[in-house]
Amino acid sequence: MILSPGATIGILGSGQLGRMLAMAALKVGLRTHIFAPEEAAPAYDAAAARTVAAFDDEEALASFAKSADVVTYEFENVPTSTVEFLAERVAVRPGARALALTQDRLTEKTFLRDLGLKVAPFVGVEDAGALVRAVAELGRPAILKTRRFGYDGKGQSLIREGSNVAAVHRTLGSAPMILEGFVAFEREASVVAARSLEGEIAAYDFCENEHERHILARTRAPARVSAETAAEAKRIAASVLEALDYVGVLAVEMFVTRDRHGREALIVNEIAPRVHNSGHWTLEGAQTSQFEQHIRAIAGWPLWATTRRGRVEMHNLIGEDAEDWRDILAQPDLGLHLYGKLEIRPDRKMGHVTRIFPESAAPE
Amino acid sequence: MILSPGATIGILGSGQLGRMLAMAALKVGLRTHIFAPEEAAPAYDAAAARTVAAFDDEEALASFAKSADVVTYEFENVPTSTVEFLAERVAVRPGARALALTQDRLTEKTFLRDLGLKVAPFVGVEDAGALVRAVAELGRPAILKTRRFGYDGKGQSLIREGSNVAAVHRTLGSAPMILEGFVAFEREASVVAARSLEGEIAAYDFCENEHERHILARTRAPARVSAETAAEAKRIAASVLEALDYVGVLAVEMFVTRDRHGREALIVNEIAPRVHNSGHWTLEGAQTSQFEQHIRAIAGWPLWATTRRGRVEMHNLIGEDAEDWRDILAQPDLGLHLYGKLEIRPDRKMGHVTRIFPESAAPE
Repeated sequence: MILSPGATIGILGSGQLGRMLAMAALKVGLRTHIFAPEEAAPAYDAAAARTVAAFDDEEALASFAKSADVVTYEFENVPTSTVEFLAERVAVRPGARALALTQDRLTEKTFLRDLGLKVAPFVGVEDAGALVRAVAELGRPAILKTRRFGYDGKGQSLIREGSNVAAVHRTLGSAPMILEGFVAFEREASVVAARSLEGEIAAYDFCENEHERHILARTRAPARVSAETAAEAKRIAASVLEALDYVGVLAVEMFVTRDRHGREALIVNEIAPRVHNSGHWTLEGAQTSQFEQHIRAIAGWPLWATTRRGRVEMHNLIGEDAEDWRDILAQPDLGLHLYGKLEIRPDRKMGHVTRIFPESAAPE
Repeated sequence: MILSPGATIGILGSGQLGRMLAMAALKVGLRTHIFAPEEAAPAYDAAAARTVAAFDDEEALASFAKSADVVTYEFENVPTSTVEFLAERVAVRPGARALALTQDRLTEKTFLRDLGLKVAPFVGVEDAGALVRAVAELGRPAILKTRRFGYDGKGQSLIREGSNVAAVHRTLGSAPMILEGFVAFEREASVVAARSLEGEIAAYDFCENEHERHILARTRAPARVSAETAAEAKRIAASVLEALDYVGVLAVEMFVTRDRHGREALIVNEIAPRVHNSGHWTLEGAQTSQFEQHIRAIAGWPLWATTRRGRVEMHNLIGEDAEDWRDILAQPDLGLHLYGKLEIRPDRKMGHVTRIFPESAAPE
């Protein structure tokens, strides 16, 4: 199904990613309909229609499916059953498979490894006893994570030398978990890339990310790595897109490490089956934003150029950072984006700021 | 009044300019409320709220004023009485004066001439007899225009050698008119510029416009004129902004002519007290779009850089041009904007396309 101007894109989820997707749809003459449980949320103000309902409200979902020409999602914790229910009624892009895969860290890591990509060593952990064996196998430090529903560092805990393994296990509850070997990385980085309905692939330049308290704080594009590593990162993203027969934008998060010969090596950390915070720099920093690229892909349209406009830095405005909006507005080189969230809360992503430098300018 | 993020901007008018203003407001965390008589229109899909009511519905206007922190307008044929009614209740930017002035071609031309700017010779025409005297005074060819409610060439007629003056007068009806001397111009061009609440002024580069059947077809920035002429054009725009104590974006349309020594000279044609079709190139072609600039100005915020990104061409998609959307989407260098108008009609502005060339590329 190829959308024509005037068609409606249904979006599951009402956060800032949905808001920016809706804005990109407006640019090219498409309508959006947001489906989410929240009464008030960033995406609603940018959409032509909204349905406020639970993700298991089948009546609301059926009506939503009827209103939309294609459905997409803006976050990966939408229940798979919701997407499966919709997929029987309307095209859902990307589909349920990418969603199911990335909702479970064990399935995701297994998929990546089976694809021939380098990942940190990992072991599935069913209970405290299994964790003791897993720690013995992978060594310390290692990171224990719940298999499902983790984001921004939630649902994970570091097991160090001397940590009480059983106690760490208890802090994460009784859900199935995964233990991952610790990666001593030089940088965290990611590739945001898109695949069209016809199988065309377009990747943005490899960018590097700094996290603070497990939340993305800054992205800079391009990443400060060799040209070979940057090209390899794009090849990795392409292989993931192909393997999933994916339609839309996804992000592949990676670690840049050094092998024992001192050469850069990439370890794949995780996949986000959606537009991604580490791609926000593309709004000003690339010829096409990740949001328009996703809209084009799920509309069945050709992708557009990912050409970067200079060296780009993106800073998230988290919590009280957003109180600096007046200072940011007054700076001639800072592009301000605010998500329309009325209440400032700690660790809440309120907006972001982009700065573009000439390509030749030396990094700080 | 300086707006904070989360504040609401009321917009009078529901066309594509309102739509693109609403999108710019979304970017910086502001809400919009559209007030217009149309049941369906481009701006609604991009706005958080809408009021569908007549411009003289005082109850609806009063409620609209209460909902908004500042009000603006996206087209100049909003009744002055509407803006005056609102201005007693909420800040309206730009105010009623710029609106009233530009609604009447005679007042507008007189204002420009009194400001010391060069305009075509003009005479007010009350009836057919006055028209005969005016034609004798200005010579032929000359253009007869209704003083009010003209746009895209509507409400005007050329008086040539041999034209039956009385017959031409009858075609335009009985409204007050203005006769303007014909300007043999080399190019049509315009400056889009903004003035902030604090009086700061930022002008985009002088750009040239080609009209087809009186409708803007193409804009290219920068205009192919001397650096002196380009600078003079910006000075003219600044003098208009200052004289009107204006807040927001306006466009000044000019003719580029040659004086008898062969030097370029500028003749001011008209003012549009709003964002303008000849500024659409700024969406991709400048650091700040005219839409974000207008939002910043009326929010009481500082203006942002107008820096141009290369040589830019903008083509309007008029009527059936919009049927080419598939071809346009497939071209890697064409930025597509569609306004969400479901019905294609002749002479209807359906969208536009932007292309950016490196600054050094030779014009076609």
